[in-house]
Amino acid sequence: MRLDTDPYLSRYAERVQGMSASAIRALFALTARPEIVSFAGGNPAVEALDLEAAEAVAAAVVRESGAVALQYGIGQGRPELREQLVDVMAHEHVPAHVDDLVVTAGGQQALELIAKCFVDPGDVVIAEGPTYVGGISALASHQAEVRHVPMDAEGMQVDALEDLLLRLSQEQRRVKLLYTIPNHQNPGGVSLSLERRQRLAELAERHDLLILEDNPYGLLDFAGRIQPSIRQLVPDRVVYVGTVSKTFAPGVRTGWIAAPHPIRDKLVLLREAADLCPATLTQMIVERWLATQPWREQVKRFRGVYQEKAEAMLGALAATMPDGITWTRPSGAFYVWMTVPAGVDTSDLLAKAINHRVAYVPGRGFYADGSGGDQLRLCFSQPSVERIEEGVERLGELLTTELDLVRAVYGAHAPAAASRPEEGRGALG
Amino acid sequence: MRLDTDPYLSRYAERVQGMSASAIRALFALTARPEIVSFAGGNPAVEALDLEAAEAVAAAVVRESGAVALQYGIGQGRPELREQLVDVMAHEHVPAHVDDLVVTAGGQQALELIAKCFVDPGDVVIAEGPTYVGGISALASHQAEVRHVPMDAEGMQVDALEDLLLRLSQEQRRVKLLYTIPNHQNPGGVSLSLERRQRLAELAERHDLLILEDNPYGLLDFAGRIQPSIRQLVPDRVVYVGTVSKTFAPGVRTGWIAAPHPIRDKLVLLREAADLCPATLTQMIVERWLATQPWREQVKRFRGVYQEKAEAMLGALAATMPDGITWTRPSGAFYVWMTVPAGVDTSDLLAKAINHRVAYVPGRGFYADGSGGDQLRLCFSQPSVERIEEGVERLGELLTTELDLVRAVYGAHAPAAASRPEEGRGALG
Repeated sequence: MRLDTDPYLSRYAERVQGMSASAIRALFALTARPEIVSFAGGNPAVEALDLEAAEAVAAAVVRESGAVALQYGIGQGRPELREQLVDVMAHEHVPAHVDDLVVTAGGQQALELIAKCFVDPGDVVIAEGPTYVGGISALASHQAEVRHVPMDAEGMQVDALEDLLLRLSQEQRRVKLLYTIPNHQNPGGVSLSLERRQRLAELAERHDLLILEDNPYGLLDFAGRIQPSIRQLVPDRVVYVGTVSKTFAPGVRTGWIAAPHPIRDKLVLLREAADLCPATLTQMIVERWLATQPWREQVKRFRGVYQEKAEAMLGALAATMPDGITWTRPSGAFYVWMTVPAGVDTSDLLAKAINHRVAYVPGRGFYADGSGGDQLRLCFSQPSVERIEEGVERLGELLTTELDLVRAVYGAHAPAAASRPEEGRGALG
Repeated sequence: MRLDTDPYLSRYAERVQGMSASAIRALFALTARPEIVSFAGGNPAVEALDLEAAEAVAAAVVRESGAVALQYGIGQGRPELREQLVDVMAHEHVPAHVDDLVVTAGGQQALELIAKCFVDPGDVVIAEGPTYVGGISALASHQAEVRHVPMDAEGMQVDALEDLLLRLSQEQRRVKLLYTIPNHQNPGGVSLSLERRQRLAELAERHDLLILEDNPYGLLDFAGRIQPSIRQLVPDRVVYVGTVSKTFAPGVRTGWIAAPHPIRDKLVLLREAADLCPATLTQMIVERWLATQPWREQVKRFRGVYQEKAEAMLGALAATMPDGITWTRPSGAFYVWMTVPAGVDTSDLLAKAINHRVAYVPGRGFYADGSGGDQLRLCFSQPSVERIEEGVERLGELLTTELDLVRAVYGAHAPAAASRPEEGRGALG
């Protein structure tokens, strides 16, 4: 096993079925080579941060409060930081009180703690299909049975969700959680429409659902548009997860959970058993960044960077992709989800892609049930506009050759993809 | 539940049986009042750090490597930091290679990941009695059955361990882990003697044991004495845990595990599922601190601070404690473990102690089996020498009154303590 890939890629490697994790890890390790345009990793563009301001903030925290910053803190996280995070939520119109919040080591620890709190082995958790690989990891590590609901350009298909809820109810299976990333979903690159948010809230009331709302990308809408959160619609039914990883920096590992107080109390105890408390130093750096720096302007800068890259990628895709390939059109954040014709397996294709000096993440890592073999994720946050165009062109050439080959072998009757999601796949892309 | 106590105290509150966790939490919350001398919390004396140097280190990391420091890292932790940690281990003569290490969010996350990796519900884990509350929490949260081995002034009683191993073997129960803190144990304040280390290593070979060696305090011996680690004696049978919390600062949440590679690989995957990766920013600060600052001199400074406080506490205890009370004499770190005569319950006594403006941690929190009702922990790392003397005097007055009361009620025939450890209690103190 290679341990020097990034932790996201490592998660994908574990989740991609049909190939061994070690083979996928070995391929991902190659994506760090400079000649390869990597659309694989999901790192935000921290180089667009005001690093001088970040240095001043870090120095001031140690200078003015060193003995506090270097000491243990409390399990729930500093009240001063939670005040600032409530402000960040308010910027998205998400209601919260400082007492509702638990500071976590990024969004990933939030998902892990929530999974540990709620999931008993065999419990059903509903999630979008595809969904965030780290969410599947956290749920699977507590032996949840993840059932997917397909998506389309308007996000989770709420009709399909309703059908699934009825089926599960007939099977007398209780749904422990519904996991959703309503804004600029990773990896789908789509957002839940307003009408569907309202229907989801109604379904939650009718079926007594607890919703795990994961919102890393809400502030990265290219047009600055803000949609109502599920927490806003049904506050008592939502455990909300936020993070500063995409609006400030992932290297401080700072996220949070906003939850009803009985749940919050359990999460604080689990957090203390996991690692006692968040690092006081990074908490104080984040809190000072948010309190003293123009962070809303910084978020606008990130949006601009991603929008330019999104346009480059979408333009290049339209110019180079052969017929039969579809993809989503993100209006925020940094993911494009692609579906290729049946007969092409995106896990098998990865080695060829790397040979063509371009990398992506195969689709199977984003499903708990082994589907997604004809899908893949492209992340455009890191490469430059020129490299994006180059990489898409290489991928287009590869897929053109590959599709010619499939058609030569199978004619018009290409086989179905290796596996399809249990609940039927949506029209994503 | 009060959430604003420190996370250690919160752990104790959860573990103290016989009183409700919320009652203990409420009492601990009072210990922050300035009029109370608190021997309860276990915070190291970070105010003895060179804070100007810490500021320079933090600023230089962001200035020179901001875009790396603020980005995601890899799950195992930075190789550059692991190099430095191998050096720290070498300072204690503990052999390790940079590939053996996994960086964790302090020692607590190390314990949690190891528990998650090895413990299935109902598995037996052997530990010293008393032992670190966070270790019990991590093991208990994975439903281990913790069996205690008593200690005396030379640490874990290896004869009693051998008896227990034979009994467990007759019961055909497999021991998953043996958890030990060989140096300046928390809460016992004693170290495992050289002869017993060797016998423990032999027993590990003979009984096919995996040892979880937790070493937060090894560098804090007042005389600078360094004892051989268990890892040094039987490297393939040890999962070793270190931390910079007591030699640099807990506010950076940086610890590590050194383990045989098949175990290391599993721990990296668990770590990624838990929170993806350690914070790059704090990793780089620790790595630069260790690489550029005279950290060995800093550790000597910490030792001097704790030695002075230890002498103050031991002097005050000898001067003020009534007959019938015993305590350990630490040769490093910052804990004294006290045993009071049967008939006094240290959990019940805590409210009176706080009324007397002195606080400690009741003994039951340090056992998994409800014993320790006649014991308590005093931590002297935080109060000044004057405050230590004042606090011990107050505790001495309280215990004198309390013992008079017990003798008046029961005469010479005081009842046994509420509960005794299953395996019989040692002569600790």
